Amino acid sequence: MKGSEGESAYAAAGVDIDAQERGLREVQELARSTFTSGVLSQIGGFGGLFRPDLSALTEPVLVASADGVGTKLAVARLAGDHSTVGRDLVNHCVNDILVQGATPLFFLDYVGAGVLDPAQLVELVRGVVDGCRDNGCALLGGETAEMPGFYQRGDYELVGFVVGVVERARILDGSRVERGDVLLALPSAGLHTNGYSLARKILFEILKLSLRDRIPGDPAKRRVGEWLLAPHLSYLRPLRPLLAHPGLHALAHVTGGGLTDNLPRVLPAGLAAEIRFGSWEIPHPFRVLQDAGDVELEEMFRVFNMGVGMVAVVGREALPEISKAFAAAGQRALPIGRIVEGERGVIYDLGLTEGGEETELER
Amino acid sequence: MKGSEGESAYAAAGVDIDAQERGLREVQELARSTFTSGVLSQIGGFGGLFRPDLSALTEPVLVASADGVGTKLAVARLAGDHSTVGRDLVNHCVNDILVQGATPLFFLDYVGAGVLDPAQLVELVRGVVDGCRDNGCALLGGETAEMPGFYQRGDYELVGFVVGVVERARILDGSRVERGDVLLALPSAGLHTNGYSLARKILFEILKLSLRDRIPGDPAKRRVGEWLLAPHLSYLRPLRPLLAHPGLHALAHVTGGGLTDNLPRVLPAGLAAEIRFGSWEIPHPFRVLQDAGDVELEEMFRVFNMGVGMVAVVGREALPEISKAFAAAGQRALPIGRIVEGERGVIYDLGLTEGGEETELER
Repeated sequence: MKGSEGESAYAAAGVDIDAQERGLREVQELARSTFTSGVLSQIGGFGGLFRPDLSALTEPVLVASADGVGTKLAVARLAGDHSTVGRDLVNHCVNDILVQGATPLFFLDYVGAGVLDPAQLVELVRGVVDGCRDNGCALLGGETAEMPGFYQRGDYELVGFVVGVVERARILDGSRVERGDVLLALPSAGLHTNGYSLARKILFEILKLSLRDRIPGDPAKRRVGEWLLAPHLSYLRPLRPLLAHPGLHALAHVTGGGLTDNLPRVLPAGLAAEIRFGSWEIPHPFRVLQDAGDVELEEMFRVFNMGVGMVAVVGREALPEISKAFAAAGQRALPIGRIVEGERGVIYDLGLTEGGEETELER
Repeated sequence: MKGSEGESAYAAAGVDIDAQERGLREVQELARSTFTSGVLSQIGGFGGLFRPDLSALTEPVLVASADGVGTKLAVARLAGDHSTVGRDLVNHCVNDILVQGATPLFFLDYVGAGVLDPAQLVELVRGVVDGCRDNGCALLGGETAEMPGFYQRGDYELVGFVVGVVERARILDGSRVERGDVLLALPSAGLHTNGYSLARKILFEILKLSLRDRIPGDPAKRRVGEWLLAPHLSYLRPLRPLLAHPGLHALAHVTGGGLTDNLPRVLPAGLAAEIRFGSWEIPHPFRVLQDAGDVELEEMFRVFNMGVGMVAVVGREALPEISKAFAAAGQRALPIGRIVEGERGVIYDLGLTEGGEETELER
């Protein structure tokens, strides 16, 4: 089974090792630009070597997380723009360990595809590299797998893996959360990386919009593609200076499951998170999704972030100081509710009556 | 867009969060069975927490690697057997850091699929759990992503990440390799996780075999499916006691690129690996692939492991002791060549003439 014109048998079966290697060399160059002082290895060894500086820590704990970008990849493909999903991936992973108090040390990526277009691979990894640089995190290694026949032409999977470190005594696990704590919402930039299956269905199938169309009635006049591809924000920069602050009781990253499923993950038994409607403006595109898709509000809060990318649970006494720190960092942070006694879960205060009628949306 | 019969809008778009959660709970139970003393967290937090015991190490270095299973997944799907690819994944990753002298601390997995059949997910993760247990490595976390429309029905992607640790002074990086060192081959169990695109093409398309057919002329009478799904071996158990041995100069994991591309990764400049044909028996199925596919021998050694899963580069003085240790551990280890002066690369000694004619296969 010799391929034509010197093409190798493996290439004839759909795998072009040489073309892959050209792209990989460029990717390795890019990755090197992220190397922090802890990196001992060149990418290309079997595994990446990292010597963490743990000298300042009494009892260092490693925190690790794996994630993907979900069907936001399908939007990237539709737009022919692969430059942003890498940043989505890194920021998502970084936020996932940040909520436990950890700062990132290094990151690894995995790209699976049918046949990888080297230029597309480089564009993709450039996004990962941008994300790593922004978060001061080394791209320590990665794997690129060509799986012909497994992925549809042009499709690819993108998976990321982050390792960070936290002082054991400073792990954020929700145990410090208490009645009266204030919920500060850090705004999201869009859908981040969740709810794309439903959003695509509503925007493309029901509303029959294209990526270039403006979101109907959006005062900010955003285009569909622009809003859908807005990168997942990392909250490391504004939160890093506060991780050691005793008044920061917990952090919840609003990903799949929305506020409804993610806030309870940091609630001790016997405490609930009461969220006040109207305390923040739900970005217009979410309203469009709700109306056009005829989606129950309860469902909206489980599938989408509704404009809130991260929630900081802050002790009342520390609120002025922490709010000031956010303002100084240029980070908007809106009080959207508080911790109350009750069954662990989220209570949505619809504010319909003067008495403040409350509705507990089913979890 | 309310779904029928109380089906949620998200489910109507193809994502069933509840069914996914049932499977995830079982997966979490399984993962807990791998928890070693370092694990601080329950799976289900945002990130996994691991407190490594570094007390015995002077300068601990973290080693991390990411990998997939490649199109071996297509064979698993064809066979309807998802119980083994998880072990493939873990063992592959463990070997990748083992060659740098590291032993694994923890592992994370990622499963991406269109709609995940919870039973299939559990079967898949059970394989990962088996692999983690065998390697004494905690399954610290993972991500399960349902991406309807992205994966074909029944398809899934499986990605793994491992983090291990090595004492800095004991990192294996090839720098100790010297002229006269002996190459010890640790046999593979089959294709491990490389070369499946070509192997499937030859076995299924050219030879038109099915999974139940016996490999033609195989003295061991193996069936195609059995051979193709034989799990990637981990070499941690036999190699762990030798990692501190000064006579173990390097290890090369024979993955994509075969002996031809992987051995040079541990060769210093000015040294070549000379491999003697006939010094080990190339398992019959590789011969079938070569003949039926009309694949050049050069190509065979770049695409397939040819029966060698791992190569230990051993100093001559240490050879008796290390060979004895392998024997005591029940690990076959065959001398297949040696380190000679020459351009960095692999020289295949075809042994055709008494003078020992040498052929340098192009890299």
